[in-house]
Amino acid sequence: MLMEEKPRQKLESLGKLLVGDINSGKNPKFITAARTKSNIVYDSKSGFLGLGRAKEERSFINVAQSKRFMQTVAIAAKCHRFLAENLHTTIRGLFYQLKYSLGEDIDESIFSEQSESNPLIEDIEVALDMKREDLNLNATRRGVLAGNIKVIDRFGGERTEIDCSKQGRSGWSIPSDVDNDIEFVDMTAKYVLIVEKDALWQRLNEDGFWKKENAILITPQGQATRGTRRLIRKFADMHIPIYVFTDSDAWGWYIYWTIKTGSINLAYIGKEIATPEARFIGVTISDLDKYEFLKKLTIKATEVDLKRAQEMLGYEWIRQHKEWVTELERMIKSKIKLEQDALQGPRLTFVDEYIREKIKNKEFLP
Amino acid sequence: MLMEEKPRQKLESLGKLLVGDINSGKNPKFITAARTKSNIVYDSKSGFLGLGRAKEERSFINVAQSKRFMQTVAIAAKCHRFLAENLHTTIRGLFYQLKYSLGEDIDESIFSEQSESNPLIEDIEVALDMKREDLNLNATRRGVLAGNIKVIDRFGGERTEIDCSKQGRSGWSIPSDVDNDIEFVDMTAKYVLIVEKDALWQRLNEDGFWKKENAILITPQGQATRGTRRLIRKFADMHIPIYVFTDSDAWGWYIYWTIKTGSINLAYIGKEIATPEARFIGVTISDLDKYEFLKKLTIKATEVDLKRAQEMLGYEWIRQHKEWVTELERMIKSKIKLEQDALQGPRLTFVDEYIREKIKNKEFLP
Repeated sequence: MLMEEKPRQKLESLGKLLVGDINSGKNPKFITAARTKSNIVYDSKSGFLGLGRAKEERSFINVAQSKRFMQTVAIAAKCHRFLAENLHTTIRGLFYQLKYSLGEDIDESIFSEQSESNPLIEDIEVALDMKREDLNLNATRRGVLAGNIKVIDRFGGERTEIDCSKQGRSGWSIPSDVDNDIEFVDMTAKYVLIVEKDALWQRLNEDGFWKKENAILITPQGQATRGTRRLIRKFADMHIPIYVFTDSDAWGWYIYWTIKTGSINLAYIGKEIATPEARFIGVTISDLDKYEFLKKLTIKATEVDLKRAQEMLGYEWIRQHKEWVTELERMIKSKIKLEQDALQGPRLTFVDEYIREKIKNKEFLP
Repeated sequence: MLMEEKPRQKLESLGKLLVGDINSGKNPKFITAARTKSNIVYDSKSGFLGLGRAKEERSFINVAQSKRFMQTVAIAAKCHRFLAENLHTTIRGLFYQLKYSLGEDIDESIFSEQSESNPLIEDIEVALDMKREDLNLNATRRGVLAGNIKVIDRFGGERTEIDCSKQGRSGWSIPSDVDNDIEFVDMTAKYVLIVEKDALWQRLNEDGFWKKENAILITPQGQATRGTRRLIRKFADMHIPIYVFTDSDAWGWYIYWTIKTGSINLAYIGKEIATPEARFIGVTISDLDKYEFLKKLTIKATEVDLKRAQEMLGYEWIRQHKEWVTELERMIKSKIKLEQDALQGPRLTFVDEYIREKIKNKEFLP
């Protein structure tokens, strides 16, 4: 039933539940899914990291929990107010509000560090089955998009239509919240291409790659934020292919697998932000067999790269794919890595051909 | 004379100069301003860090210089080609091109690390009095803008008009190059407000602060990039006030002084990117006297903050302002700092009032 309520109603239902407990002389409490390491599971069927079935109870009359319980209620009350006011802030802004005052008549300071409020925000997200973005809490934003799609942004009650095919050299900045008061319309693209580095995104944007290919061109500008991951998930829900193009090194792989299977830290919203349908387009160490010139342009793998490659061989979601095992073992043996920038070696526009060829021949890693 | 030439012509003039030297049996050479520490000077009249009068000669027939001379010519040739092709890349992309091949018939590899090409790009920028952006080399971009101004972006030969007052929650992404094939028109804003943190920019954007105030609202998203600094300089050239709003800590001050006086690393293009007209709007430690509630919301200064404050007292461009000396000494004594986020304590929209009040009362630091 909670599932169909809006964020504000959900917070009110939680409040009523607690007041009900108090009025009937019961110990007020609420239930949340455990976010402990042992309850983070990779579900091979769905293909992402999520939470298991373990639950945790938070109750007020409990010496170990009463302060945290009070703090959680204070956070819920602040977020309820942000929603009522229709104003957004960040978890840092929320922390300063909590530090300033708990509410109307309470002059008690129960927060001294932001590390106290952060996990309790997650508690509320999990207990009420919604994301912090639904509570008007913005997360860090990063990432840019260009392509044949329009954004209807009803932010602040004003309707703005942004045509992502008319953003010149800049592209459209992907916000923190891509779910509330925002719509994506007139999408005609045939696939989504995610490019690790902004430099390569700019290269492809300049070539009009997304126009010629009718693709959506995204760069997360490094590791993908919550907002960018959520947006990729939404595109996958439209049933168009998602291709990821990164460096062939520890950081590039990490970016890919975070988009695809999610991450331990955000396993509690795994379903909302993971895109198991994503495919890896390159660059790969195997590219050296096909593109002779790349042999001149490899660089030495660092200890971190090699250690990380070894670790990845241990993850069940990676080692189940023989293509990845081959790739990783090859890099460990040869001790070299390859950057996506290297594809500009022979000519600046070669990167366009590389991607087109890979897509045409369906040369992806799973 | 070189001053009025376009980048491509400047490169061609350099080439002709070298060929002329060779044909007349002279040692080919060119002159560049020295970028050594001793030639980086703060000019108190103009108010920014620039290069002094010391020159350096780069010549081919010189055992210590001939490899670097060849490398420089190779870089100039590559950039000439990028300009002819009308395509952009980064200094990383350029490095891979140099590593791949030096040119048509030369199968010689004279670059092994990017650290070899980077300083030579600066040599060319200084010798030919232009920026790398003019050579189709993009630098890292970061920073977002909203306000009553339009961008005419002629990137890739296609004209796109972007209305920066109609970008919803996202804003317009500030590119690397704000000089070539780009124009800023219909600017009606009365001042430019630069906000260190994206979180606060989003807060102010949501409140329609820039609409109510008719301001240009920029966040550099931390330290300002070359592109953002250049854009701020361009706004200052339109003779509108530039206000900077950062945290009161080492990083915030660094952001401010980099915008205002420039930086050692980029002293060679100081005139193009420094904005001595900029004023500091806060937050300041002195705000504690006026806004009682902030006393609850200070945080402990780190060793880095204190050390940096001490260093700043030694810079002539800072210690000449008694207001800054007072501010810095006060923070060193009290060992506290203050974040701009703290202004959200009493209510989310308080930050709007704070800025409006400061501007109304002209409460700036120089």
